[in-house]
Amino acid sequence: MEWRKIKLTFSYQGTAYFGLQRQKNGPSIQEEIEKALRKILEHEAALVSSGRTDSGVHARMQVAHFRTNHPIPANRLPYAMNTILPDDIVILEACDVPQNFHARYHVTEKTYRYRLLNQLFPDPFLRDWAYHVRAPLDLDKMRRAAAYLIGTHDFTSFCSVRTKVVDKVRTLHEIRIEETQRDTGIPGQGKDIWLTFRGNGFLYNMVRMMTGTLLEVGRGKVPAEHVKWLLEIKNGDIAKINAPPHGLYLWEVRYDEPSSLSTVPGV
Amino acid sequence: MEWRKIKLTFSYQGTAYFGLQRQKNGPSIQEEIEKALRKILEHEAALVSSGRTDSGVHARMQVAHFRTNHPIPANRLPYAMNTILPDDIVILEACDVPQNFHARYHVTEKTYRYRLLNQLFPDPFLRDWAYHVRAPLDLDKMRRAAAYLIGTHDFTSFCSVRTKVVDKVRTLHEIRIEETQRDTGIPGQGKDIWLTFRGNGFLYNMVRMMTGTLLEVGRGKVPAEHVKWLLEIKNGDIAKINAPPHGLYLWEVRYDEPSSLSTVPGV
Repeated sequence: MEWRKIKLTFSYQGTAYFGLQRQKNGPSIQEEIEKALRKILEHEAALVSSGRTDSGVHARMQVAHFRTNHPIPANRLPYAMNTILPDDIVILEACDVPQNFHARYHVTEKTYRYRLLNQLFPDPFLRDWAYHVRAPLDLDKMRRAAAYLIGTHDFTSFCSVRTKVVDKVRTLHEIRIEETQRDTGIPGQGKDIWLTFRGNGFLYNMVRMMTGTLLEVGRGKVPAEHVKWLLEIKNGDIAKINAPPHGLYLWEVRYDEPSSLSTVPGV
Repeated sequence: MEWRKIKLTFSYQGTAYFGLQRQKNGPSIQEEIEKALRKILEHEAALVSSGRTDSGVHARMQVAHFRTNHPIPANRLPYAMNTILPDDIVILEACDVPQNFHARYHVTEKTYRYRLLNQLFPDPFLRDWAYHVRAPLDLDKMRRAAAYLIGTHDFTSFCSVRTKVVDKVRTLHEIRIEETQRDTGIPGQGKDIWLTFRGNGFLYNMVRMMTGTLLEVGRGKVPAEHVKWLLEIKNGDIAKINAPPHGLYLWEVRYDEPSSLSTVPGV
């Protein structure tokens, strides 16, 4: 059979892994998926994802592609793979895509969400799923600070100095900060704050650095204008405040419609 | 200082424990809490809970009492205990109660909830928190079956034969079966079904046996009337279908108002 390209959509709990990408020092999500593919396809298949996620970061929806000459119908792959994969990784969809589809280069929009638990005591149900912040947060001030980040900027100050990426200009379409109240039966408990970041792409550690800085603003440690100054100074050594990974979710990855993909020049 | 009684309200993820109650064969939530109390109070304190929960079962809100002669203000206890406890157990409230308060005997109402994930593929975010059922469920049929359970009945058929309790008559005030849809970005995924059981008390394994039987009804394996027959036959060996523990939550424990407690004869 001819070689074809398959697009995978999957979800994972990041807690037990050293991130999406293959690592020398510990297990990765990529390694588990490639291992499952090898068993089914009977050949090595290299997974190309929409982008890495860090150790401990979750993905509601991650996308990747690989190539195979195995005749298995794409829609059978999730069933076959999920029986092999550990239960913190679940394949949700698989479909054939044009040969020129590329899971990283063709991303048109990504959404990340960060979940904060803003209450007196932690929640045992959310210890892997939200960052517990006891201090009261001024959400309006955080929203004023977030507004500086919207648009096209050089995000050098919100990018790990360990990155190898040269072009640090990205476009943020939206940062939404929403408060929701769950009924826990205990007064003052159950307050979630979700930060939603939607943009054309994100640099290494960018969402966690933005979240960490917005939290400093919300706590009243720095003024909202600090964010504007950080953008201008373009120095990755200064912000340095990474919010912890377990509150972060890769939420959605968008591509052009498949019909238009076939007109994109081959990669 | 005089001996006083303190009421604790707490929450836990049951996954890592052999249940609430002290066990010889593994760790229990009671053991962890008593260990934390011993460190703070500098004496042994026996925890008396509203009732046991099984291995793997969660509690959104569990209640217990203990006695102490230590002068620590009750409202400081959650802070002190939470720094000692593992992070899958969280103390939410502590308050002084009358000497005749009893966490088990004075319960007036309990609510349990069972969370089903009714969709094609499992959800890595919910693997510890909901029972994944792939088969379509007829909720109306399940509601018809549940209606037989409402009221005062001998629940022998819905009680583990391992129980030592003699009186198996309990009153169920309500069974609510609700479907909710979360947005997962994937069509057909994100369907939760919550079963809510509210009653004056529950026998050993009763909620899991009721849920298991209602699932058999929902899958079309037995008619709704099967539940009526089970109630009548009063035999704990027949139903035997325990829904797994990780979908079950002790949701709420209710007592008479504190003011009326002081008029209850001492226990």
